[in-house]
Formats: sequence, structure tokens, C-alpha cells
Amino acid sequence: MASHREANSMASSSLTPPEVPMELHAINRGKLVKYLLQHLTESTRPLHGFVLLQGGEEQTRHDTDHAELFRQESYFAYLFGVREPGFYGAIDIATGKSILFAPRLPAEYAVWLGEIKPLSYFKERYMVSKVCYTDEIVGVLHDEYKEQGKPLLFLLHGLNTDSSNFSKPAEFEGIEKFKTDLNTLHPILAECRVFKSDLELALIQYANDISSEAHVEVMRKTTVGMKEYQLESMFLHHTYMYGGCRHCSYTCICATGGNSAVLHYGHAAAPNDRTFEDGDMALLDMGAEYHFYGSDITCSFPVNGKFTSDQRLIYNAVLQAHNTVISAMKPGVNWIDMHKLAEKIILDSLKKGCIVVGDVDDMMVKRLGAVFMPHGLGHFLGIDTHDTGGYLEGLERPKEPGLKSLRTVRDLREGMVITVEPGCYFIDALLAPAMENSETSKFFNHEIIGRFKSFGGVRIESDVHVTSNGCKNMTNVPRETWEIEAVMAGSPWPLDKSSIHSENGREGK
Amino acid sequence: MASHREANSMASSSLTPPEVPMELHAINRGKLVKYLLQHLTESTRPLHGFVLLQGGEEQTRHDTDHAELFRQESYFAYLFGVREPGFYGAIDIATGKSILFAPRLPAEYAVWLGEIKPLSYFKERYMVSKVCYTDEIVGVLHDEYKEQGKPLLFLLHGLNTDSSNFSKPAEFEGIEKFKTDLNTLHPILAECRVFKSDLELALIQYANDISSEAHVEVMRKTTVGMKEYQLESMFLHHTYMYGGCRHCSYTCICATGGNSAVLHYGHAAAPNDRTFEDGDMALLDMGAEYHFYGSDITCSFPVNGKFTSDQRLIYNAVLQAHNTVISAMKPGVNWIDMHKLAEKIILDSLKKGCIVVGDVDDMMVKRLGAVFMPHGLGHFLGIDTHDTGGYLEGLERPKEPGLKSLRTVRDLREGMVITVEPGCYFIDALLAPAMENSETSKFFNHEIIGRFKSFGGVRIESDVHVTSNGCKNMTNVPRETWEIEAVMAGSPWPLDKSSIHSENGREGK
Ligand SMILES: [Mn+2]
Ligand SMILES: [Mn+2]
Repeated sequence: MASHREANSMASSSLTPPEVPMELHAINRGKLVKYLLQHLTESTRPLHGFVLLQGGEEQTRHDTDHAELFRQESYFAYLFGVREPGFYGAIDIATGKSILFAPRLPAEYAVWLGEIKPLSYFKERYMVSKVCYTDEIVGVLHDEYKEQGKPLLFLLHGLNTDSSNFSKPAEFEGIEKFKTDLNTLHPILAECRVFKSDLELALIQYANDISSEAHVEVMRKTTVGMKEYQLESMFLHHTYMYGGCRHCSYTCICATGGNSAVLHYGHAAAPNDRTFEDGDMALLDMGAEYHFYGSDITCSFPVNGKFTSDQRLIYNAVLQAHNTVISAMKPGVNWIDMHKLAEKIILDSLKKGCIVVGDVDDMMVKRLGAVFMPHGLGHFLGIDTHDTGGYLEGLERPKEPGLKSLRTVRDLREGMVITVEPGCYFIDALLAPAMENSETSKFFNHEIIGRFKSFGGVRIESDVHVTSNGCKNMTNVPRETWEIEAVMAGSPWPLDKSSIHSENGREGK
Repeated sequence: MASHREANSMASSSLTPPEVPMELHAINRGKLVKYLLQHLTESTRPLHGFVLLQGGEEQTRHDTDHAELFRQESYFAYLFGVREPGFYGAIDIATGKSILFAPRLPAEYAVWLGEIKPLSYFKERYMVSKVCYTDEIVGVLHDEYKEQGKPLLFLLHGLNTDSSNFSKPAEFEGIEKFKTDLNTLHPILAECRVFKSDLELALIQYANDISSEAHVEVMRKTTVGMKEYQLESMFLHHTYMYGGCRHCSYTCICATGGNSAVLHYGHAAAPNDRTFEDGDMALLDMGAEYHFYGSDITCSFPVNGKFTSDQRLIYNAVLQAHNTVISAMKPGVNWIDMHKLAEKIILDSLKKGCIVVGDVDDMMVKRLGAVFMPHGLGHFLGIDTHDTGGYLEGLERPKEPGLKSLRTVRDLREGMVITVEPGCYFIDALLAPAMENSETSKFFNHEIIGRFKSFGGVRIESDVHVTSNGCKNMTNVPRETWEIEAVMAGSPWPLDKSSIHSENGREGK
């Protein structure tokens, strides 16, 4: 029996979930305090008060006791790294002292939900200066405050430019015993999150590593006749089983055939439930999250493992855009310019493929790129998939098609992590009006484009870290068409370069 | 290449996700109308008006655009089976006519989220009489209403006795143009859900079949040194990959060693993250959901595949309770009696094992059973894991330890589906005070019980359908210790009875 039980080896991954250093969050707090003090100094305001954040609460579904699996609110996760619901956290900006407030749990908790941990457990686990109960917030913060009058609380209130929602400032009984500032904290904290520390980068790299490996695994196991959700299931399983990732950064998009032209496919009303067929392209946008830090990776490939010439044409158009953008990325480069660079490369390729005709610069003026790529080139990535700081106060969202979908228009700077995700889609709702429009109709080869009616689309997405003099692609998946074909035919990844010719009849790209 | 790609067969399950007949929800609606009319007739009230329910909305996480995977509100799912968010549904009780109101989607939806389906699509898919837009509710319902004055709406408002939350009545602009009744609908609709139709039973059976198969798969692949969450990952993967189950009925409880004494282990603050060791028991409480209908199954087994004598003692105590209760279940039997029957059998076994001493009837009077099994014996199961109707109006929740945790105290009736889940746990927070208490201290063998300090607990849970003259266990997993040992050693499930002796050295139970 022993031999059988031991035979179930776990060696289906080269990775092991890493320990998470809680210094990461201490560093995040230190950075916030530094920039907050700097801001207060510049505006000649007093250098005291507390940053106070309220963590997330566990949610039940409608009127039932069905508890949704809790995931911490992202700003709270950034500063404190706490995985449990019901906490508050404070930082004394004068001293840098950090205080967590834990919920006081009823005795019954021990029977139903687990050991009631002493406050010292949280102090040690989360490396904070002090831990008290949430019903002690008023007293503790008054005791800690060394100045005259009501203590000042910097609360979190500000616009999320991706959702258009506002973050909710902390609320607690007795808040009227404090002065509150709703304006100062949000822009500074949002900006802190834009620039990743080495410890943050290591987690994003790990999320990329396990997700890249899972993408390769899925690619290898994809066969004609499967359901889209089976690809999702394989990805989720690989990243959880071997990577310890209980959460994904977002709901998996497993789109095949025409569905790959739906940018955010995979939600409840379009639930990855198509059976895919020989000749389909698959577009898989899936990324795991590890200790709050995420990844966001898209691979596109033919489900039967072999590109047709049409598929190769569109795929290579997008890949060239992806690669050229990454080659150009470094501090100082503007993101709108990168978006336009991607658009231009894709239009150039479509022109070579006789799908569009005419002058590409004219097309750019008429925003034809947005017909084929209506989304933005990429977005900041971190604790949120669409991470904070895309539009600094003062920066305006462009109005033009395509550009208006950009989640940031900033210049790149060292420490940013941003996705590069050009795409080329044949979306009827955009193509039909553009082909009828008297200003843009002339650009389309109406005959050839008919061939692509049910093609869907291609997206290639990597997570890129901007370094001091360039950038680093954190994603590691087969990208060249011949790499994809080799891996889908059973080759290891990374490819053993010497054996490719003989084994897989590699074609030039 | 072809041979490799086709080699990835999907034959790891004997099951295929079934088509869901939407008649199921038409039958549910018909049943509601029948009982509602009956109630109105009995109370000599007019027989007209509309049942109006508001479906669930997609939720985003805090201020971000992170969309949680939507799962329909359960009452709405029961009556309409709609998987998309943002709907309303009405039933004209005079005619039985059903009307769905779909959200009017912006043109952009087609680019980002998928084809904007015509109303006729929903009419056909969901087999309703009519589909309009949500902004037409006021006009449509006024047009449909054949009586004088403001139309009457029966809205859903009532207590969920598991969560202590109230369901939220439908809200929409213009509701003041209607009369509303908040009291009539809830008890009748909650009661409808208690008695399952054949079509509902078929879905619960399928959820049980795929979940049973997944439990067996997990059992087989469990080896010493794994992490608890790896068992969760295997279960989720099996039920989604082969069963098409995107949702689980509840967060998986994968408890090993001492964690198996935590009844609702597995949540964010106790996230199935222990590495388990040789000699541990595992308690896996996991159930998949298919088209809203769930399952709720617990298996307990030694992670190394072989019961010790202590493990066998506790396990068989619980198994005997489980089997005896199921043997006794039929219409007319009261659930409190079943709970006490389970308690008594467990105490009898613990006495035989010299863990408790003295008169078992005395122990029952002192509620000693609740020290070892603080939860209720079982609960209704359906679209919610803790399904509706546990406490009919008029029924009171008992006050005594153990009994107060019962989610229902009703007499069994044909058509109910209820879990049978006796357990026996060594929970310090309950044992320590009971062993010190002067009234109960004498019942414990203080020396022997020390051996069980880090034992954790055992739970055995099956989903049982009450039939006209007995009941049917819908769950099909290895239950006898020798069955578990055989399956963990590689035997097929169900066991090939003829081969058991030679292959696995079966012991008497
Ligand atoms: Mn992205
Ligand atoms: Mn249960």
C-alpha cells in the first residue's frame, strides 16, 4: 500500500509557494509615512495624526448564511497584510508606530471557526507595534496622541478611476471624538502603490511564475472538443494545487472561436461554456494571486495546436506589437505613445495581410486602431489587477476611441509594473459601423475581412516591470508561434533549443 | 502530433453534466401560485396581484472594478433559473403568467461583455410568458392588471433562521404606483422550497454524484505531507473539470489533525493551510453545486490510509449514528428525536471505548452529547446549503446545548432533502469546562480522554431524500473503514466485492 500512496508525487511543478516576509508591509507603511510627512511639511501643516483604515468584512450572500470567501480590501492589505476580516489599522505619523485593532470574537467562535488567537499572535504575525481590540480604538488613539485637542485621523476617501467608485472612509463608534481629514491620504497612498518595492516585486514575480507554468500546462492539455471552462479548471487547479494560490486576480477569461472577440468574456452571463472546435483560436486571460499580489497573463493559440495562415497573420501582428512595445519601454516613455505604437504596428501588419488598405498614418488619424483594439494597451498591476494611480490628479482621460480606454496615460518610471496587452479583434459591433462610415469605409478590404467574421481575436499579455534603464518581462510563456506549436506537441518549456528542429519541424517565424 | 493531443482523454469521470430542463422552474412557479391562491382563498382575500422578485446584482470588491463571480439570489433562482444579474421577475397569480424583466444593456456591453441578447432569447431560454426591460416594470404590470385600482405586489420579506438576516423586498422606481404586501409571500415560498420535485431531485442527485466521485478521487490521492488546500484544489478541479460545477455549495472545509475539531474550518482566517502528518485524521466537508442546486458531503479518513484503533473507535461511533438515523428516517419521524438518537449511539460507543463512564440516559439528561457534537444533526439542502423552511412560523428553536444548533426541528415529510451529519469532536473549549463542571465531570474518563487531545474530530455527512415510506441516501462514498482503506489502497469505487478479500485483507468492521 505504501508504494501506491507515495506514488502520488506532487512533482508537477518546479515551484514551491514562498514564505511571505511581513517586512513587506512594514516597508509599505514606512513609505506612506515618509510621503505623507513630506506632503504635510510642504503645505506647512502639523506633522501629527493617525492614518486610520478599516479592513474588509466577511460578506454573506443575500439573506442567507452562505459566507463568500473573504479577501482583504486592497489598501488595507497593502499597509497591513492582514488576511482576517473585521480589523482596523492605524499608523501614528509622528512616530511611525503601527496599531492593529482586532475584532473581539465571541466564545462560540472557538467551536465553529477556530482557536481565538491572542492579540500577541497578531502582533508577531503582522509585525506591528501594538494590537488592541476594535472596541478600543477611541481610547487607544486618544492615549497615543501627544498633542492638544482632538486627535486627527487621515481617512481614505477618493475616486477609483477604473470603477468610478469611491473608497469608503473608516467608520466606528466614537469617531466624532476625532478631527478627520478626507482629502490628504488617498492620492498619496494610491501613488505609493504605483512603485513596487523589491519584496512586492518578488511576490508579483512568483504570481507570474506559477501562472506562466499553469498557462503552459493548459496549453499542453487543450484538445479539440473540450469545454472552455475545462481550461479554467486546469488553470485554477495548477495555481492552487502547486502554487498555493487560493484566489485569482480576476475571473478567468477562457474564450474560444468568436468568443475571443469579447474582451471580458467568462462572467456569469457568458460563463466559459462553449465546446470548442477544430480550427478555433483560444484566448486565455488568467492570472493567479499570491498573498494579495496578482498577475495578469493572456495567451492566444489554436486549440488544435497548429496555426493556420490567417491565425498566424493576426497572431504575429499582435506579437510584434507586444515585443516592440516592451523593447521601447523605459523610464520617461509615455504610455499613450506606447499605445499608439502598438496600434500602428498592428495596422501595418493588417495592411500587409490585405485586411486594411491605404495610408496607415491616415488610419491613425481616423483612430482605426481602436476598431481592432478597443481597449487600452495595459494597466498598472499589483494588489488590484487594475492597480491604483492610473490617473494622477491633474491627468485627464483622453476622449478619442481606444485612447479613452487607457487606464493610465502616465510616463513610465522605475518601479512601475504594467501589463502590455495588445490585441486584435474582429468585433462586429465595431467593425460593421466602421465599414459603413464614409470616413473609414475605404480602409477596409471588405472581401477579405469577411473571412475573419467568426475569427474572434488575439490578445497577448505580459506583466512588465519598469527598471532604471529599461524593463523586465516577468511573464514566461511560449510566445512565438513555433514555440507554442512545439509546447502543444509535447516539448518542455522552456524549449530545449537544440532539439527543436528535429522534433517539431520548426518553421521560421 | 495528433496522437499526443488526442491522448489527453477526459475519461476521468463516469459522469457528464446533464442538460437542465427549464420546466423545473415553471413547475416551481406553478407550485407557488397554487399554494398562494390556496392561502388567499382560505383567508378570503382577492385572488389577484403579482409576485415580484428582484434578482441579484453583480458585486464589485470595495471601491475597485474587481467583479466577484455572480451567483443568482436563491429565491429568484428557484422561480426563474436566471443566471444573469440585474433581472426582475413577476408572476401574475390570477393567470399564472410569468414575466421576466431584463436589464437594458449599453451598446458598449457588446464589446466588453458579449452579445446583447434579444428579449426573445431570454423568453425561450427561461420558458416564461413574456420578457420586457426592467425600466418597463411599472407600465407592463399596470397593463397586465385586470382589476380596479393600484395593482397588488406580493414582495419577499422574511427572516432567514440560519443567518438571522431578512430577505430584501424588490425595489424599483415607481413602486409607489402599486399596493404592496410584505407578509404573505415569504412563508409560502420558503415552504415550497422544502419539498423537492423530481426535476429538483435529479439536480441534487447529480451534484451528489459528481461530488461523491470527487471525494473518492481526493481520498485516493491523499498522501502524508500534503497541504490541506491541495485536497480542496483536487475537489474543485474534479467537480468543475468533469462535472461542470463552477460553484461550490460552500467554502471547502479541509481539516486535518486538530483542525478537524473546528466545525467550520477553511475560511479566510483558517484557510486550509496546514501540512498534514502521518497519523492525522482528515475531515473533508465539500459539496459542488450544479445549476443552483447543491450537495453537502463530509468524509473522514486517516491521511495515511489506515485507521488506528482509536480512529476506528471514534469513526465507527459516528458511522453507526449515521447509519442508524438513516435506517429510522421516514415521514412522520421528528428531527429532534433523530438528533438525540445520534447522540445516544455516539455516547454508547464512547462508553464502550471507556472514554465516558456512567449511565448514558443520565448523560443525555445532562446534554453530554452536545460536548462531543455541538452542531445539529442536519439541515435541509437545496438551492441554499442551509435551505429554507427549517423553522415554520410557530416552531421554536430549542434552548438546550446541541439542540439549539438544530437548523430544523420538524417532522420529516416526503420530498424533503436533509443532511445527516453526526460528528464526534474533541473540542478543548467545550471539553475543558464540561470536565471541570461538578455535574458532568464524573462522566469523563479523564485519563483516557487525554489521549484524544489533538485527535480533532470525525464527521460523516450524507444527503438524504425522504420518500413516501422511508428515505434514500443520495451520497455514494466509501463509508465502512474497510471500504475507505481499500479505496485509498487503489481499489475501484464501488468496490468489486469479489476481489476485496485477496487484494486488501479486509477486516471485519
Ligand atoms: Mn490585463
Ligand atoms: Mn452540512
